[in-house]
Amino acid sequence: MRQNQPLYYLGIDGGGSKCRAIIQNTEGETLGEGLSGTANPAYGIQAAQQSIVEATYSALSNANLPSSTINQLIAGAGLAGVDIQRFLKAMQDWQHPFRAWFVTHDLPIACLGAHQQSDGAVIITGTGSSGYARVNNKEIWLGGYGFPHGDQASGAWLGLNALNAIFLANDNLGPKTHLTEAIAQQLKITTTNEALADWFVGKSSRVYASLAPIIIAEYQQDSVATAIINEAIDYLKQLGSELLATSPIALALIGGLSHFYYDHLKPTFEHRLIRPKNNPEQGAIVFALQEYKQTNKEKKQ
Amino acid sequence: MRQNQPLYYLGIDGGGSKCRAIIQNTEGETLGEGLSGTANPAYGIQAAQQSIVEATYSALSNANLPSSTINQLIAGAGLAGVDIQRFLKAMQDWQHPFRAWFVTHDLPIACLGAHQQSDGAVIITGTGSSGYARVNNKEIWLGGYGFPHGDQASGAWLGLNALNAIFLANDNLGPKTHLTEAIAQQLKITTTNEALADWFVGKSSRVYASLAPIIIAEYQQDSVATAIINEAIDYLKQLGSELLATSPIALALIGGLSHFYYDHLKPTFEHRLIRPKNNPEQGAIVFALQEYKQTNKEKKQ
Repeated sequence: MRQNQPLYYLGIDGGGSKCRAIIQNTEGETLGEGLSGTANPAYGIQAAQQSIVEATYSALSNANLPSSTINQLIAGAGLAGVDIQRFLKAMQDWQHPFRAWFVTHDLPIACLGAHQQSDGAVIITGTGSSGYARVNNKEIWLGGYGFPHGDQASGAWLGLNALNAIFLANDNLGPKTHLTEAIAQQLKITTTNEALADWFVGKSSRVYASLAPIIIAEYQQDSVATAIINEAIDYLKQLGSELLATSPIALALIGGLSHFYYDHLKPTFEHRLIRPKNNPEQGAIVFALQEYKQTNKEKKQ
Repeated sequence: MRQNQPLYYLGIDGGGSKCRAIIQNTEGETLGEGLSGTANPAYGIQAAQQSIVEATYSALSNANLPSSTINQLIAGAGLAGVDIQRFLKAMQDWQHPFRAWFVTHDLPIACLGAHQQSDGAVIITGTGSSGYARVNNKEIWLGGYGFPHGDQASGAWLGLNALNAIFLANDNLGPKTHLTEAIAQQLKITTTNEALADWFVGKSSRVYASLAPIIIAEYQQDSVATAIINEAIDYLKQLGSELLATSPIALALIGGLSHFYYDHLKPTFEHRLIRPKNNPEQGAIVFALQEYKQTNKEKKQ
């Protein structure tokens, strides 16, 4: 790379369903935003890397920068799924196309964005769910153990529980629910259990999570949907209380379901529940900057 | 095939974890038994066909018959997973190595074996779970919609719920449980949530079901295991009541967990809960015989 080529910063927020990218100049101005598919390496390492590159090209295009600019980018990424060490390592070892590449978990990145400082707590509720807090360089990680055995209150968890309730209702083994009709309309299939089982066999958490908006729309209308969501809210209250137990930090909610849950958690956490100050992509750029300065300092020493 | 070669009957019971085969002569004597891996085509059609062939060779060997006898077999099979039409069709269209091949769902076959007659009810609890009843040629099918959204009280369901409880306990979001230690010993991994999440990411229902014996061993010892199993028993009581509601038929339990559940369901169903008279492989031979006779009758007409 020629020394006179300008540097840019790339911030990546890679979740189970979507990968978001932003590009900033060295003055901290956001020049462009990009979007692509799943960037959780647990669903496939190559697919995650491809999504990151696609989101980057999307953001470069949106910033009216040529795609060749990719090798002028100092990239920072927070990715879902890298709490499993081998996925973190695979992403760290990637022969990436950027000038520099720093990767960590999605939670510290989201936290850094949401609070514009190191200390704070976040709960992510999107396709998956997890909680994180950082206090004086000490980290707490809760939840986020994956689908189907963890990730309570996530979109996939809501979908799984709704589907389960529909099967029971259709078999006359559980209460009737309007979710049956609502989901049949969304999937454009008949409401029989056979058709639903056929549709969902072997599907990923993202497909289950695609049902979440339907379940949320039935909250306080349909008793089955309401019970599922109340269980989710109870879990999030417990999770938040555990994250906030040791220090007077604030809590922010991130992810596709955070707007819905915010209103239901506000009465419990009051002033300690805040709206995120910045998004995770911006947190990823703060992280990239910190790491890049650290690397350069080490080189000079 | 030369006309003077003797005929044999092959009965196949193909489940999510195991495929069982028996070979009988035309006098109804069982000559050999065989065993292989999964024969649920939802986990892979070719794998299911391979398991069936392997179990057949295993049974031929056990019967001291040469493997070339495979083309003298009138084969009947009851398979898990073929309630999904495309899997049933794939298995029916198979270019099989037998003299004749008849395939249906595992439930009618299990029912035919358990009651030695058409009418009756069965609940299968193994890797998956499902219920079936037949009364005057009318069939009732309940449950069995697959993992992770259905199959309550199955081995995989027990494993999923236990794992979920362990994650919560380790995160201080749920009651402590001895399952944590018991499962760590079985899997020979540390008890951290990270290690467990790493172990289970992307695993099939069979891996979750492998935890079932540990959970059952903790019944009435550990409060978390007891609560999970009590929920399973409540579901099976509902399922059984629904199957028995319309007719004075008897109910039999089939599958790997049936011995455990029998004792806990006996007080509810009393004399209507019976031990299976024959196993599903024998039911599969009765089915093969019925179908073979029907086919020959049609040919003669």
